[in-house]
Amino acid sequence: MSRDRPTEDGLIARYLAPLAGPGADGMRDDAATLTPTPGHDLVLTADAIVAGVHFFPDDPPSSIARKAVGVNFSDLAAKGAAPRGILLTLALPDDWTEAWLAAFAKGLGDALSAFGGALLGGDTVRAAGPLSVGVTALGEVPAGTMVRRMTAAIGDVLCVSGTIGDAALGLPLCRSPLPDWGDAIGAADRAALVERYRHPRPRLGLAPVLRRHARAAMDISDGLAGDLAKMLKGEGRCALVRLADVPLSQAAVSAAVHAPNLMDTIVTGGDDYEILCAVPPESLAAIRAGAEAVGIPLHPIGTVLAGDGPPVFEAADGARKTYAAASFSHF
Amino acid sequence: MSRDRPTEDGLIARYLAPLAGPGADGMRDDAATLTPTPGHDLVLTADAIVAGVHFFPDDPPSSIARKAVGVNFSDLAAKGAAPRGILLTLALPDDWTEAWLAAFAKGLGDALSAFGGALLGGDTVRAAGPLSVGVTALGEVPAGTMVRRMTAAIGDVLCVSGTIGDAALGLPLCRSPLPDWGDAIGAADRAALVERYRHPRPRLGLAPVLRRHARAAMDISDGLAGDLAKMLKGEGRCALVRLADVPLSQAAVSAAVHAPNLMDTIVTGGDDYEILCAVPPESLAAIRAGAEAVGIPLHPIGTVLAGDGPPVFEAADGARKTYAAASFSHF
Repeated sequence: MSRDRPTEDGLIARYLAPLAGPGADGMRDDAATLTPTPGHDLVLTADAIVAGVHFFPDDPPSSIARKAVGVNFSDLAAKGAAPRGILLTLALPDDWTEAWLAAFAKGLGDALSAFGGALLGGDTVRAAGPLSVGVTALGEVPAGTMVRRMTAAIGDVLCVSGTIGDAALGLPLCRSPLPDWGDAIGAADRAALVERYRHPRPRLGLAPVLRRHARAAMDISDGLAGDLAKMLKGEGRCALVRLADVPLSQAAVSAAVHAPNLMDTIVTGGDDYEILCAVPPESLAAIRAGAEAVGIPLHPIGTVLAGDGPPVFEAADGARKTYAAASFSHF
Repeated sequence: MSRDRPTEDGLIARYLAPLAGPGADGMRDDAATLTPTPGHDLVLTADAIVAGVHFFPDDPPSSIARKAVGVNFSDLAAKGAAPRGILLTLALPDDWTEAWLAAFAKGLGDALSAFGGALLGGDTVRAAGPLSVGVTALGEVPAGTMVRRMTAAIGDVLCVSGTIGDAALGLPLCRSPLPDWGDAIGAADRAALVERYRHPRPRLGLAPVLRRHARAAMDISDGLAGDLAKMLKGEGRCALVRLADVPLSQAAVSAAVHAPNLMDTIVTGGDDYEILCAVPPESLAAIRAGAEAVGIPLHPIGTVLAGDGPPVFEAADGARKTYAAASFSHF
């Protein structure tokens, strides 16, 4: 199966080996070693992103790399974990180019430097299909302290980090023609929303704060409404969320002014990669102070209640709304 | 993106959650925990297999699952590691069925039970392309004892486990029409070779034996000639292999009798998933006894020599041969 291209080994050596962590021996072995920090648990997660599903095939390669790392590290952050490294599985379409790979590797290296963590191994395959980037991320927490998803208690305060809905608004702005509201908001707002869609910001700074104060946490990847429903599923718990308290960016506010129905997109759209957590009321002040101290504000948006059914979103005028479909799923 | 199919969560719960290890909390969280064994290093490897490249799209789903686990655990075995678990990334083509997934999950569970290790997490995505199964495998070794690939020394004896070439001969037997030699060998031999192609047998029993006695090791996945070249690459070392000492199965011998040029296929073909190791001469008797004790014979096939160039294969009549292309690569 020889081709007029460098071999897999040649490509790995040229572009990915320089990113290899100390246990990966310059990718010159079939496996890497990782020495766990004594007294810590490993936290493991795997998420793949696929061209045409999770990103646009012509997105900048460095953005694709950063997104693949970001979505996985976002899970680590929500679990209270610090990243140690990743393994990368790259399925390249037939028309890949070396320039693409070089730019991808550059973005990967930049993301690992920015977020922490080393490239520990991986595999590259050719697939007669869309580009797909699979990442397995490894993080660590002090033993027994991983923050779980399903452990919220009735009475807990629900908080989210940052701002919600920006990425979901950024997505249609990557398409042509722009939606009407896209034309109406300015270029700077459009750029800010697209940036949020392309470049998840894993909230790693919150990890120790969540470990200390949160009863339950997850990252918001499939929309606030759907992910909140997942968090509370099947345990006689539901939620009341005050819509007016859901934090919005200036750009999202501008968009929603032009198209009020965008609030549904904001609440149900995917790719926020913010943190959703449930906090005992007595810990609310402490977790907010801790979050403020690391520069990532946490906003209380509602409460965990006894009951069943999907989360209820209450507008300022008292109107209540639920979202039947649990946001989107990759199926 | 709702469809007339169960949601991703529903599918995971039904088929994959029952396979989840204790740290994976029934796949009800976004990450799993793994408590490392004190005093051990983790050994990490990732390999993806793709329909039409690494297996036939209509292979039995349980075989595909077993192969995906097997090729990764084969790497762990070669590194001297005991499996702890896997993360699975499944990219399903548009025409997947629930029956397919059910059979795949059954095969995955059987493989994990047979080989050891738990399902720790994963992701399922839809891709408008071929089925692709990515596995990240985690194993453990006592700290500092991972067996490396690049550390063979001049004078070491080269050994391989089991028999070589069976899977490479099994591959064309999965196609129609059969090659002439395929008609000539019996149905039992054909079945034995196809079995080797479909179902890698990771040599996990050898892991502690390799840790104790091997100077270097790797698994043979891309053909003996090419993988041996990889093992010795770039350090002023080459190899002389006695072709007559390369261990063959009865089925492979039958095939080679009918078509002597199959020896090239046997030596260069992929998918053996046997162990190749370099052993100090003074440890040869001990490693062979250890291998015999776990029921996986190790056969000396040649020697590491000073020099450069690809491994030399010497026939019984003294004729020497090298294989220029480093076997096949996935690019």
